[in-house]
Amino acid sequence: MTDLLDFVALSLLPAWCRLHVAERLRAGDAPGGVLQELAARARDDPDKASTLRSRADAAIRRAGMHAITAIPWSDAAYPAALTTIADPPPVLWTRGCVAALGAPSVAIVGSRAASAYGLSVAGQLAEDLAACGLVVVSGLARGIDSAAHRGALAVNGVTVAVLGSGVDVMYPPEHAALAASIDRDGAVISELVPGTPPQAFFFPQRNRIISGLSRAVVVIEAGEKSGSLITARCALEQGRDVLAVPGNVLTGRNRGAHGLLRDGAKIVESADDILEELGMAHPAASAAEVSKPQGDPLLACLPPGEACNLDVIAERSGLSSSRLLPRLFDLELQGLVRRIGGGRFVRMDRTC
Amino acid sequence: MTDLLDFVALSLLPAWCRLHVAERLRAGDAPGGVLQELAARARDDPDKASTLRSRADAAIRRAGMHAITAIPWSDAAYPAALTTIADPPPVLWTRGCVAALGAPSVAIVGSRAASAYGLSVAGQLAEDLAACGLVVVSGLARGIDSAAHRGALAVNGVTVAVLGSGVDVMYPPEHAALAASIDRDGAVISELVPGTPPQAFFFPQRNRIISGLSRAVVVIEAGEKSGSLITARCALEQGRDVLAVPGNVLTGRNRGAHGLLRDGAKIVESADDILEELGMAHPAASAAEVSKPQGDPLLACLPPGEACNLDVIAERSGLSSSRLLPRLFDLELQGLVRRIGGGRFVRMDRTC
Repeated sequence: MTDLLDFVALSLLPAWCRLHVAERLRAGDAPGGVLQELAARARDDPDKASTLRSRADAAIRRAGMHAITAIPWSDAAYPAALTTIADPPPVLWTRGCVAALGAPSVAIVGSRAASAYGLSVAGQLAEDLAACGLVVVSGLARGIDSAAHRGALAVNGVTVAVLGSGVDVMYPPEHAALAASIDRDGAVISELVPGTPPQAFFFPQRNRIISGLSRAVVVIEAGEKSGSLITARCALEQGRDVLAVPGNVLTGRNRGAHGLLRDGAKIVESADDILEELGMAHPAASAAEVSKPQGDPLLACLPPGEACNLDVIAERSGLSSSRLLPRLFDLELQGLVRRIGGGRFVRMDRTC
Repeated sequence: MTDLLDFVALSLLPAWCRLHVAERLRAGDAPGGVLQELAARARDDPDKASTLRSRADAAIRRAGMHAITAIPWSDAAYPAALTTIADPPPVLWTRGCVAALGAPSVAIVGSRAASAYGLSVAGQLAEDLAACGLVVVSGLARGIDSAAHRGALAVNGVTVAVLGSGVDVMYPPEHAALAASIDRDGAVISELVPGTPPQAFFFPQRNRIISGLSRAVVVIEAGEKSGSLITARCALEQGRDVLAVPGNVLTGRNRGAHGLLRDGAKIVESADDILEELGMAHPAASAAEVSKPQGDPLLACLPPGEACNLDVIAERSGLSSSRLLPRLFDLELQGLVRRIGGGRFVRMDRTC
């Protein structure tokens, strides 16, 4: 418990200390020692460490009364994924199920002012990912974030909301009921001490936790200046996969997402694209793919590796050119046959 | 003129002879000799070459009466771009302005059953490309193709339609007036002898001409089995750039275009993306970019290459942390400043 007190006290240091904290703790220093040393640099308070410990103690007590768990970095329940980032929060204040933080997860983030299309895609992807047992992480914001949380909940899935305020301070206020639903099987978390009101500059910092918790970040409808792009950049820095959903090019709503695609983000049309990127390709889909019959009898007239002209194929198949060409065209579209110029065709081997 | 007759006769050989024709002509053989040799293989007619020459002669006479020009491969007016493909047509039947075939061009192709979105994007891109002096090439089909032609015409630009029928056989019939408008400054062309009715298997072959004429192919709203994907594949084989416009992932309309993006096609949001790919970045835009002032005084507090924490920036700028962070966040979104963890910031040099 002393450890917890020191971790919470460390979390009360200004944000710019965070990297120093992480460096020292990684080096094996005790949190109390790190606190003592960093607090000693404060110019405003000769006994800053004690002050912070008192505030930490009060915060932990108050949190306990509100069923908020403080998970310090040293705790087994602290999400392993988050320990790998450069500047993990010293403590995670958590409402709901702490266990939700341990499961593999995918973040879905995007515009607060999303279109019906964006909301629909966010909800559908979250449903499908949650149905596959993945935890859906987002930021409880209006728009894409809440559509993602709701999608996961719609299939009784698990979802985690990371706030830019204390977990007991609802922003936006109308999402209090949503947060309560998330608590049931998932969690609402924050690095900010309970009671902290939301502030604009907390949100970009919060974004590194969203990506840090997740194996991949999916961006939907990020404009050119969307905070989701910061989440995407954090994800890249943390070695997470970044994926983006394309959309209308005329509205400007997707400029950020398209920019990510331009820079190499993987394109997402459905949850399968995300699962594939995570190496978790949907088993049902794969099985269907494998057992798909390649039964067109025309293929038997095209021995692998041999380029045949129409006359040859006509002779072998007994079909006239005019009946043959539309069928070859169809096989070409299926990727089973390839036209190689001069009206010759070769069979494509799907296994190569 | 004898040459023309031979080239037209060669074009009347079955499609599978095309590669042989190209190989022989490239080797420097005279078209008459190539015709003689290939025609000799015909089993149905002992004097096939004469038969083809007679048909060619009749076709050339009839074309002349309908203001259709036959441009043989050997003609200076034959588009240089098309000579570079594996199997160029021996002759191009041309309505309108032959000169239109010599200018740099971009193909815009896509679904016949396009959405209002697809039509709108096609029209806008064509307008913008044509306004930059590029010729817009497409296939006169319903949907994206005709929207592209119309976009170019709307700004008095030049556009070329490549048909899967003779240039005097309108398919779809309702596009006769559009073809007439295209003729004015552009051209309607086909490798098929005038009078040839459209047939399904002509269209995939026609697509290699669309891509072959063009420096780049832009695909809009191609479904999974769209013929536009064949055009895209031809383009890749011919060394042309392939670009695709993204869109809605829920309708299935863009599956083909998104598949191209997945395979490395460049994403198109506006004509600038196409111009950039062609190394023709819009001069006005570039000038604006260069002269854009980077005037935020905060940047002066961040010497290039130095990572500064908030305290340092606060001291230098005289601003408090709470006023500083939102402004740094804004600079971060503009790509002028980067957060590097631990609350430190570095200035990004736009020129590197």
